[in-house]
Amino acid sequence: MSIENISANRSFGGWHKQYLHDSQSLNCKMRFAIYLPPQASQMHKVPVLYWLSGLTCTDENFMQKAGAQRIASELGIAIVAPDTSPRGESVADDEAYDLGQGAGFYINATQAPWSRHYHMYDYMVELPALIETTFPVTTQRAIAGHSMGGHGALMIALRNPASYVSASAFSPISNPSQCPWGQKAFETYLGKDRDSWRDYDSSELLKNADKPVPMLVDQGEADSFLVEQLKPETLEEAAKASNYPLQLRRHSGYDHSYYFIASFIEEHLRFHGKYLN
Amino acid sequence: MSIENISANRSFGGWHKQYLHDSQSLNCKMRFAIYLPPQASQMHKVPVLYWLSGLTCTDENFMQKAGAQRIASELGIAIVAPDTSPRGESVADDEAYDLGQGAGFYINATQAPWSRHYHMYDYMVELPALIETTFPVTTQRAIAGHSMGGHGALMIALRNPASYVSASAFSPISNPSQCPWGQKAFETYLGKDRDSWRDYDSSELLKNADKPVPMLVDQGEADSFLVEQLKPETLEEAAKASNYPLQLRRHSGYDHSYYFIASFIEEHLRFHGKYLN
Repeated sequence: MSIENISANRSFGGWHKQYLHDSQSLNCKMRFAIYLPPQASQMHKVPVLYWLSGLTCTDENFMQKAGAQRIASELGIAIVAPDTSPRGESVADDEAYDLGQGAGFYINATQAPWSRHYHMYDYMVELPALIETTFPVTTQRAIAGHSMGGHGALMIALRNPASYVSASAFSPISNPSQCPWGQKAFETYLGKDRDSWRDYDSSELLKNADKPVPMLVDQGEADSFLVEQLKPETLEEAAKASNYPLQLRRHSGYDHSYYFIASFIEEHLRFHGKYLN
Repeated sequence: MSIENISANRSFGGWHKQYLHDSQSLNCKMRFAIYLPPQASQMHKVPVLYWLSGLTCTDENFMQKAGAQRIASELGIAIVAPDTSPRGESVADDEAYDLGQGAGFYINATQAPWSRHYHMYDYMVELPALIETTFPVTTQRAIAGHSMGGHGALMIALRNPASYVSASAFSPISNPSQCPWGQKAFETYLGKDRDSWRDYDSSELLKNADKPVPMLVDQGEADSFLVEQLKPETLEEAAKASNYPLQLRRHSGYDHSYYFIASFIEEHLRFHGKYLN
């Protein structure tokens, strides 16, 4: 398995680096970014927060805009940001921003032509394994994300409660089976049979979660996608019904942008820091 | 004078906003960004830090990537980020990234066709006046910038010591008359007469500065532009010779990117905060 370092920037005493590698799950070359805090060394391995980005993003948006390295440097937490879909000329795509490249939705597609490459759910098993054999990190993992990536983070934590100590999200697509973004993606990637959608819908998964993962969700009340696409109330209701440890906070005036994420990312890092050793 | 608000994002309890206005100095429509901290109101005006960006940047890079709003929110300082040149289809341009639009160099061009619009030095007089009549800010100003904008910030402070209480820069083009970026821009915008260049060269201006402005400069030692383009040693030597209050810090391993800026922007904000009331 080749892995190629393509950039390195010193940041808050640690290093931000980008890598290319051949993904077996996605059947294409993938780029990811990692922030290694100054504490990380072979003698002192650090835990990892995985960050899943939203529609149209790459590994770069969060690393450049969230201001997370400052707190990761203080707390001694590595951050890994994967891309949001398989990439490349041979990878199926769509002209819309909410389908195809940049819009992998963290699921395993079963429908042609998407099923050849779109296995982002499997990639989120492959990538941590690669990270843990390549970098000075422990197997302690937390997961977080924004919008489509918020959906990904909560859904992956709910389905893999033994693999993640905590999960958090900004403005997640909380009930993708019941909103236009999710319905378009799920019907395209998974087909019309809605039974297959349930395994990728956090509000559905929450109803039957057995091993709870501490979960923090922040939502801006001025988010233009709030009512039609995000539906945090479905997550809240499911958590109440199943007595799930979800903390959902609403913030007056904040929108869907990285200005919202930057404003509260410190609290997310400290939330995960409580559970990561 | 019309001024049009085109975006608003809540950020760290305050507001990041973008505006369009007709600039008289530049003879075109210009966009700028302002961060207003939560303390700012008509009853409580706040001082302003002007941030000048580098080659290819707009008003957006610093606001999105530096992480400055967090500290500005704490300290009660507004931040204004202008664009880096005049803009528009009727504005002269060049295919190179270091000339024309995105590369105004904060000078008043005297050579055709540039002299019609390229008056960024004058714009940096026009814009603060507009800011101070439009927003709840005081007339207390500090100025900072990166690379080409670091040159701009130091040069403008040196020439207007009564207008700025403090100045700082990351990786400034310290001696533009003696480096390829500066020579190309100055010869194109100002002509071959090097006497006219001196007024825009911080290392030259420092030699004869009468009223000192407290000045902080951070330079990464792994910056690929350090030796050929930035030449901080010329600034340092001029400051020593004239006993100017310049604090120049070199940082091992850091490059020319916003990861460097983000790592040390807090110290710049607190430096300016000492002088801004």
